[in-house]
Amino acid sequence: MANVYVSELRDHVGETVTVRGWLYHKRSSGKLWFLVLRDGTGLVQCVLFKGNVTAELFGQADALTQESSLIVTGKVRKDERAPGGHELDVAELAVVQIAQEYPITPKEHGTAFLMEHRHLWLRSSRQHAILKIRHEIIKACRDFFDSKGFTLVDTPIFTPAACEGTTTLFETQYFDQKAYLTQSGQLYNEATAAAFGKSYCFGPTFRAEKSKTRRHLMEFWMVEPEVCFAELPDIMQLAEDMLIFILDRVLEKRREELKVVEREVAKLERVGRPFPRISYDEALRLLQEKGSSIEWGGDFGAADETTLSETYHRPVMVHRYPTSVKAFYMQPDPIRPEVALCVDVLAPEGYGEIIGGGQRIHEESLLRQRISQHGLPEEAFRWYADLRKYGTTPHGGFGMGIERAVAWICGIEHVRETIPFPRMLYRIYP
Amino acid sequence: MANVYVSELRDHVGETVTVRGWLYHKRSSGKLWFLVLRDGTGLVQCVLFKGNVTAELFGQADALTQESSLIVTGKVRKDERAPGGHELDVAELAVVQIAQEYPITPKEHGTAFLMEHRHLWLRSSRQHAILKIRHEIIKACRDFFDSKGFTLVDTPIFTPAACEGTTTLFETQYFDQKAYLTQSGQLYNEATAAAFGKSYCFGPTFRAEKSKTRRHLMEFWMVEPEVCFAELPDIMQLAEDMLIFILDRVLEKRREELKVVEREVAKLERVGRPFPRISYDEALRLLQEKGSSIEWGGDFGAADETTLSETYHRPVMVHRYPTSVKAFYMQPDPIRPEVALCVDVLAPEGYGEIIGGGQRIHEESLLRQRISQHGLPEEAFRWYADLRKYGTTPHGGFGMGIERAVAWICGIEHVRETIPFPRMLYRIYP
Repeated sequence: MANVYVSELRDHVGETVTVRGWLYHKRSSGKLWFLVLRDGTGLVQCVLFKGNVTAELFGQADALTQESSLIVTGKVRKDERAPGGHELDVAELAVVQIAQEYPITPKEHGTAFLMEHRHLWLRSSRQHAILKIRHEIIKACRDFFDSKGFTLVDTPIFTPAACEGTTTLFETQYFDQKAYLTQSGQLYNEATAAAFGKSYCFGPTFRAEKSKTRRHLMEFWMVEPEVCFAELPDIMQLAEDMLIFILDRVLEKRREELKVVEREVAKLERVGRPFPRISYDEALRLLQEKGSSIEWGGDFGAADETTLSETYHRPVMVHRYPTSVKAFYMQPDPIRPEVALCVDVLAPEGYGEIIGGGQRIHEESLLRQRISQHGLPEEAFRWYADLRKYGTTPHGGFGMGIERAVAWICGIEHVRETIPFPRMLYRIYP
Repeated sequence: MANVYVSELRDHVGETVTVRGWLYHKRSSGKLWFLVLRDGTGLVQCVLFKGNVTAELFGQADALTQESSLIVTGKVRKDERAPGGHELDVAELAVVQIAQEYPITPKEHGTAFLMEHRHLWLRSSRQHAILKIRHEIIKACRDFFDSKGFTLVDTPIFTPAACEGTTTLFETQYFDQKAYLTQSGQLYNEATAAAFGKSYCFGPTFRAEKSKTRRHLMEFWMVEPEVCFAELPDIMQLAEDMLIFILDRVLEKRREELKVVEREVAKLERVGRPFPRISYDEALRLLQEKGSSIEWGGDFGAADETTLSETYHRPVMVHRYPTSVKAFYMQPDPIRPEVALCVDVLAPEGYGEIIGGGQRIHEESLLRQRISQHGLPEEAFRWYADLRKYGTTPHGGFGMGIERAVAWICGIEHVRETIPFPRMLYRIYP
């Protein structure tokens, strides 16, 4: 008998097929057993009718526990009322394993317990849906950049120097020297963009920050495009285009999963172009009007970001932050060098920053000055300065943290549910 | 004027457009300057005719050095003889920067010099072509698994325990505990496959091996699918299907780049189904006939692998190695428990192993026995053992090292050219 996945049942109505999966739940009504099976691609209700199977087989159903692994053969019937939309009239049932008492039950569990059982928690419908949406977001990012002619480059994880300060770096012994785990592929991407015109990297990045907030992980994935001959407005446009592409894709392909996570889809649907673009100065005025005590020159705190991101129904692009609060490589505004040609994109509904980027310094002498001002080791940045010697161009890009984007799009509170095995302060198990 | 990329010129023949890029080389014939520009997507010959431009502009061309950054506006003309197939009749030329003397010239450079200038070496046509093929291979892997209903899961980089021994692990201080950089996402994928039916991860992996061979990097990317209810023949079929899919895609999309790297394309074209599947025992006989001194029970050395992989014109699948030379989680053959239900796929032309995989132990007591025999910390594997308690099923998968696959498909000698910034023994710069 053909093995099929539940997601393929719609193509097999009226046929007898075999489905392999795990018992999700069961109920009986005397002459019938309703076994709901999950196989990772969907749910199907398997109906055991006493009159159709041997007494032994019918009796087996009684012993089945949640998550027992089963191989079920039966005829596919369309049934709108059944969970998943199809039923299987069971002819044969083979039990691979009767599962031990499953620790995750429909009753409430605390987060610590669930995180400790993350390897099993992933099977729950909500976690399953979130990670399906994550998959779709990642695929959308890649499809977006691939379709626009960007070249994928995998930038290194081991780096000899810190991009944005050393206090938040994970360190390792790399044979006879020290190496640090990357915080961003950007610097390397500036080299690859000069080779490919436009490039992107997409990989894990690391921050050893002792912060225990709903928006921080020690290990998180980031997609980072970089474009030569691009200036700040181009970078903002690219970010807007990418986010619209991602939202369209998720709304097109993952309606079911958005329903499972109880996302208010209308709030995603109303996100349209153009995204508001406001300067840091304008944002500051807005915050001060709303009672924030922030002064010019300060970076926005989490509360400020939340306020800004609740003001609009779309992602808001805040550009031209004070140079002093931003990284060493940021291109100053030629008209007003105390602000940088940078942009943060804040997701709406209070989600806050999901993207940071801007134009990079492309003039060698200014770059050297900044490296020295920031006390960075010149030798480690020799290759980076080289890029300004051999055909430098205005260029820029951004980085989007995948877990924060997933949290926003799924409408969930904490990033820990947006990655299969989150790495948080003091947690690297499982 | 519209900014276009060289790869888009074919859609703009007869139009006046602007191209931005870097001077690749130039030559003059009195009244003409031929400036070949690269913009990362291709090459275009820009023709400056003395009669068409100002004397000042014409004179500028003389000062242009290799890799100078330029913005060129002109009319697009189709010309089969020109490098890239198009010419631009230059009307305007803006010099962004006259590059300093470029260190990489058409003359020969030693590998150490090129590796030291990897950030610039990437701009050379051969390196550019290799990384374009790498991009295509990675995209093909993802498209293959996505189209087959696999869910992408990003398995963690920080792990508390070693999968295959601790001697080759990079270690880091993770707040109050030790963490190791992952060598494989497989164990985690066994959990996600039980949640999604079939899943794959694709990320960087790390081996702190003090080996300096043409096939080793400290940091390399691996794609790893895992499938529930799958047995060894299914895994071998999946590997064959994936490799055929990748080859077809590269042959379809990257002919130009294969030409640049001087790949003998016929050798890729003759790779068809089915791949030979031979047992370790058969492979051993073959090696002994060819004069190898290897005895039953020994793992194949690099020379043995080369011999095997030169015997066939297709990838060869060697299955059922002695259990003793393989990892703790390998399912023993029920008929002959001294061999494991595993497979290595060796690429032809002497390239050797590119894939390793097989069936995993799905019975809890046997797994516990192996964990203990291998002296592994039971506590760290508690969650892994859990997977055998709650609806265990036969399952398996494989891992393919991207850099080795790229080396084979490009026909290049050393994996160091298959990744933008290779991490080798003692080298983490640039």
